Amino acid sequence: MKLICTQENFKKAIYNTERVIGKQSTLPILENILLETEKGMLKFSATNLEIGVFLKIGAKIEKEGKITVPAKLISSFVNNLPAGENISIETDEQLLKIKSGNYKANIKGLGAQDFPIIPEFDGEFLFSFSGIELQNVLPKLLVSVSVDGSRPELGGVNVILGEDGVNMASTDSFRLLEVRVGLKKEKADEYAALIAKTNSIIVPSNTLSEVLRAITPETQEVKVAVEESQIFFQVDNVRIVSRLINGKYPEYKQIIPKEFATKTILDRDELLRAVKIAGFFTNKSGEVNFKLKAKEGELEITAQSEEKGENRTQIKAEIDGPEQEIVFNPRYVTDGISAVTTPKIAFLANSGSSPVVLRMVSEKEGKMEIDEKLTYVVMPIKN
Amino acid sequence: MKLICTQENFKKAIYNTERVIGKQSTLPILENILLETEKGMLKFSATNLEIGVFLKIGAKIEKEGKITVPAKLISSFVNNLPAGENISIETDEQLLKIKSGNYKANIKGLGAQDFPIIPEFDGEFLFSFSGIELQNVLPKLLVSVSVDGSRPELGGVNVILGEDGVNMASTDSFRLLEVRVGLKKEKADEYAALIAKTNSIIVPSNTLSEVLRAITPETQEVKVAVEESQIFFQVDNVRIVSRLINGKYPEYKQIIPKEFATKTILDRDELLRAVKIAGFFTNKSGEVNFKLKAKEGELEITAQSEEKGENRTQIKAEIDGPEQEIVFNPRYVTDGISAVTTPKIAFLANSGSSPVVLRMVSEKEGKMEIDEKLTYVVMPIKN
Repeated sequence: MKLICTQENFKKAIYNTERVIGKQSTLPILENILLETEKGMLKFSATNLEIGVFLKIGAKIEKEGKITVPAKLISSFVNNLPAGENISIETDEQLLKIKSGNYKANIKGLGAQDFPIIPEFDGEFLFSFSGIELQNVLPKLLVSVSVDGSRPELGGVNVILGEDGVNMASTDSFRLLEVRVGLKKEKADEYAALIAKTNSIIVPSNTLSEVLRAITPETQEVKVAVEESQIFFQVDNVRIVSRLINGKYPEYKQIIPKEFATKTILDRDELLRAVKIAGFFTNKSGEVNFKLKAKEGELEITAQSEEKGENRTQIKAEIDGPEQEIVFNPRYVTDGISAVTTPKIAFLANSGSSPVVLRMVSEKEGKMEIDEKLTYVVMPIKN
Repeated sequence: MKLICTQENFKKAIYNTERVIGKQSTLPILENILLETEKGMLKFSATNLEIGVFLKIGAKIEKEGKITVPAKLISSFVNNLPAGENISIETDEQLLKIKSGNYKANIKGLGAQDFPIIPEFDGEFLFSFSGIELQNVLPKLLVSVSVDGSRPELGGVNVILGEDGVNMASTDSFRLLEVRVGLKKEKADEYAALIAKTNSIIVPSNTLSEVLRAITPETQEVKVAVEESQIFFQVDNVRIVSRLINGKYPEYKQIIPKEFATKTILDRDELLRAVKIAGFFTNKSGEVNFKLKAKEGELEITAQSEEKGENRTQIKAEIDGPEQEIVFNPRYVTDGISAVTTPKIAFLANSGSSPVVLRMVSEKEGKMEIDEKLTYVVMPIKN
């Protein structure tokens, strides 16, 4: 292999492939990035056997070939180069000779023949998401994914494919976030056939972190295909392939209340601050008390512990319905408030022992409207 | 105690006192900040028994008193308040009642009578440093302080008091940084008496970190007094008192060469980058090779390891003197280059087995001049 490419493209390719690489791999070649020439392009591939990432950049190729090199070493090298000069590379058996201006290195690699095959997708993508919308909702969804591993199906985001959009949901069984996300069909008939067969899939959270990493402010769309037990994403020139999580996602729809006895609208930042402060004063079981005082038009948040003392904050609230007293774990409430990005937030409750829902509030023609696009459900602590 | 003060002053006072507080203290009261009224002001004190910090802020005092409260809890509370409202506090036995707008807390404290006495200094300060100069040199000096604790005297910065300024130095015995810092005498006679008696002191690195933390862009001067085995600093309204480190600082002057066979001037950023990259390619003993090629007018930096491969960078260099080959630990060289903040750097050497000196280079009337204000000494690895 012998070629020249721009430093900018090379750096971006390393950035987008290096992170899937496992830290403690039993298979040394999985710590490497595969570089290979393909149809006048230089292709970069990396995999941890669950997720594969590859992308191609333009290159002036003098001699075809392939090699794998340690991701960490080549990343450290190229990321410390001064900007400007091109990168030229050449292989000599299992050595990658890389050069940019006066900076030269010979990096010991491993033979490409031992690199695992990453499934390629050569069909057409069925639908696409807006890049900016995914960049907005994925970080919120990833917060509620279960991390303890005891229920593998909760280690991903559930995507329910519908006619006009998808519902994405994540839960660790203490709280749940559901978001509606729009989609554009690329192939209407094939998409209809897909949702007739498989309309609910579970995408591993690590895969979505990679998708998020590949999205840039310039990304228009993220194309998606689902095939057998695999999902394929295309974000600009980056392709990500991943297994789907097997298993049945909980039927969460039935735990989201449809009616609410008490609907409250609050200032979002004020609520976040008050719950955060209350969290410092909780006892070991982590209890923060919410008291919706309809008559006074205020929400009173309190917390106390034998050791630390107590805290009390009053927040102005527009309360529609009877008084309520509800006890929460402050962490789950702050995550929910953080997911709501409108200046006002809706706090929807039925009782101290049933799920509470947080939603966005938008102002339309001077009227507050509760927006059902995003639903955060949190279970109170029962006393 | 009952009083009102501004939130801004209260927050700043907590910020400047909370950090000296030890993490794992055997004495619970050392995790607390002492609040007490004193001559129409509110005084904050904290100590870890080695360093004490205190400062006073203006307050409208209705009732005198004192209490100690957990630093972490009161810091979390006030730092999450919305800006604007004043803070009012009131004590009820060992409870601190604190309120700002709608945010209220009762924080459990400990009696002030058990708080250790922090030595006060009521004499006059003998000299002062410029705030901006300390802010510039202290971070550089703190990098070279020894952290292993085996030689307590190397755990601080040596300050040698002179007629027109001080020399500050730090070393961990692998490398040494010495910086000349100007001073303004506040009391000339007393200062002369001090340096006649004690002209070399060792200030613990943690104490200097606190001084650095207290310096703001508005700080004009940092006043200093030395008395017995203690040092006192005043940075704006913050007072810091600390023990000095006992022991004799090494006579480092004798290891700094006065003459150099080969004087080289290089681009500072380019040198830093090349050594950093070479560091990725070193073997376990961490060796980077410098080859000063006088004829070619270049410095060649190389590193290699059996496992990773090799690296080679050529940098343009103005070399005055014979060729040299010198082997370094890259970490000690990068720390030294980082301490030099001029665009050009001087690399001064005699041989591969004697100390190398790095210095700043300033341009005066189109001529490069080596600036002796800062001296970084690094020992080569002998082969």
